[in-house]
Amino acid sequence: MLMVAPKCYKCGGVGQVYQAHTGRVLCKKCFEEDIVERVREQIKKYNMIESGDLVLMGISGGKDSFVLLDVLSKLHNPSNLIALTIVEGVTGYNRRIEIERTEEHCMERGVKYITTSFKEEIGYSLEELVSQASRKGVKESPCTFCGVLRRRILNTMARRVGANKTATAHNLDDESQTLLVNVLRGDYNRFFRIHPMSPRLHEMLVRRIRPLRKIYEWETALYAYFNGFGFQAYECPYITLRPTLRAKLRRFLYAYEEKKPGSLMRMMDVYDSLLDKKRPWGDLGELPTCIKCGEPTSYGRDICKVCEIIEKITGV
Amino acid sequence: MLMVAPKCYKCGGVGQVYQAHTGRVLCKKCFEEDIVERVREQIKKYNMIESGDLVLMGISGGKDSFVLLDVLSKLHNPSNLIALTIVEGVTGYNRRIEIERTEEHCMERGVKYITTSFKEEIGYSLEELVSQASRKGVKESPCTFCGVLRRRILNTMARRVGANKTATAHNLDDESQTLLVNVLRGDYNRFFRIHPMSPRLHEMLVRRIRPLRKIYEWETALYAYFNGFGFQAYECPYITLRPTLRAKLRRFLYAYEEKKPGSLMRMMDVYDSLLDKKRPWGDLGELPTCIKCGEPTSYGRDICKVCEIIEKITGV
Repeated sequence: MLMVAPKCYKCGGVGQVYQAHTGRVLCKKCFEEDIVERVREQIKKYNMIESGDLVLMGISGGKDSFVLLDVLSKLHNPSNLIALTIVEGVTGYNRRIEIERTEEHCMERGVKYITTSFKEEIGYSLEELVSQASRKGVKESPCTFCGVLRRRILNTMARRVGANKTATAHNLDDESQTLLVNVLRGDYNRFFRIHPMSPRLHEMLVRRIRPLRKIYEWETALYAYFNGFGFQAYECPYITLRPTLRAKLRRFLYAYEEKKPGSLMRMMDVYDSLLDKKRPWGDLGELPTCIKCGEPTSYGRDICKVCEIIEKITGV
Repeated sequence: MLMVAPKCYKCGGVGQVYQAHTGRVLCKKCFEEDIVERVREQIKKYNMIESGDLVLMGISGGKDSFVLLDVLSKLHNPSNLIALTIVEGVTGYNRRIEIERTEEHCMERGVKYITTSFKEEIGYSLEELVSQASRKGVKESPCTFCGVLRRRILNTMARRVGANKTATAHNLDDESQTLLVNVLRGDYNRFFRIHPMSPRLHEMLVRRIRPLRKIYEWETALYAYFNGFGFQAYECPYITLRPTLRAKLRRFLYAYEEKKPGSLMRMMDVYDSLLDKKRPWGDLGELPTCIKCGEPTSYGRDICKVCEIIEKITGV
């Protein structure tokens, strides 16, 4: 039997990647270019980054954030990019390897790198918060604390360093899960807010961008792998093991995507085309301001989630 | 331990139904009224039926179609309603019991009842089509044939009897599954077309209404049960047993609804509120006309699916 290696549909070179959602085979180089070009298109289409922008990137040290760092440094002046790693503060999970690695990636690309921690910013490490929470019978999971604090710190740090945009590495799989969760929750507000053109809802809120929103997770993984990015050494000990509703949703979407490649992309395309032109967020009011810390909070609240967590746990 | 029966939140009577999506308990009578009122609201909101309308209802004989028949006869002049059962023509599945039962239900309510069959309308029974199809290696499933023919016959029969609306018994579960399938397919057109206000796309296409679109399937089942509706005696022998993608979707949505009651309702609410005001179907063109039979067909086709099926199978 004669075996012929499939050719890259773009350059005719040796095919290495089968992109199921387009039905095309690509070589390594053209695959990487495809990712960069698709990020460029999103940035341009939604005016995510303009030439003078100072962009603070949330870099956890995982594969997605590596791709964010690498691609943005190709598309924007690296001296106008800052990478930020936020250390949660959990014994046995000190992020040392991720930080060393990210430092190296940033140096190679001429990107400024800063780190901070929950302890420095909020006064408590994640571990301290979690152990206090279990003592006080607070029901929120460590992942809730972590998500809330991480978003807060990315935003306050952006203001501190004078960045006018924050970038996170959410990929297409993340975005489509979130979209569906928001629809099933009937959360109109959040449904609109994941759109790249949705307006800033508070003057203290730095505009957030998600340049990888149309890149599949398998694509970020492969891009990172092709670029010699090592796999993560340790996993957070708080990682949730019970199958949450979101995990069910993820599994369902994966199964669907596997049988009908391109489904997640098409779902986001429908969403985009619905909101690109119509932009029905005229009636989203400004977010309220926390009466304790002065940061923006969610609709209907007067104390923000961060102050609430600290109050519940420390009684302060 | 003292046990107190829960009270109906409306009338204070003995509670019999727990409506998870509202968190309320209802008695049998108030539950039935709730269903009727919610159908009335949908009809009014979307102008589904006006006073002089002649409505042809597709009545399979199952629980949903029983609810359609019962509720519509309470909300519209029964003499302006016609029920239609279409017999597929499958050995051992002759619909005799369903037809007898529907005849009785129609008589009780003063609704005209007619029946027809694939054989009378198309020239072939479903069984004949299926056996020809397997001989000719046609890949479509019996359910595809059945769906296509059923929709066609409902529409042509409506024109024949002078009805200006056709009503089907699709419930909230059906609608939310279809919505999600259309989104995952990226099928903008069908995405818009399940909205009750989407325009007629062909002059030969009678306007379709789905008055039960906001009633959960468990609600139609319970309503039918409370009204003495017997369970279906026989199942179609062609019922698909392998777990299709749609079955996966259904299971996922059920699991989600069970954990977070009201999710399907909220999903349809988001859909409605997106399209109610904006109605972005300005650019949906008229459907093409089949060059063989003169009936409307899908975009990009010149021969309709019905003619295609008959052509493939009979070579005519």
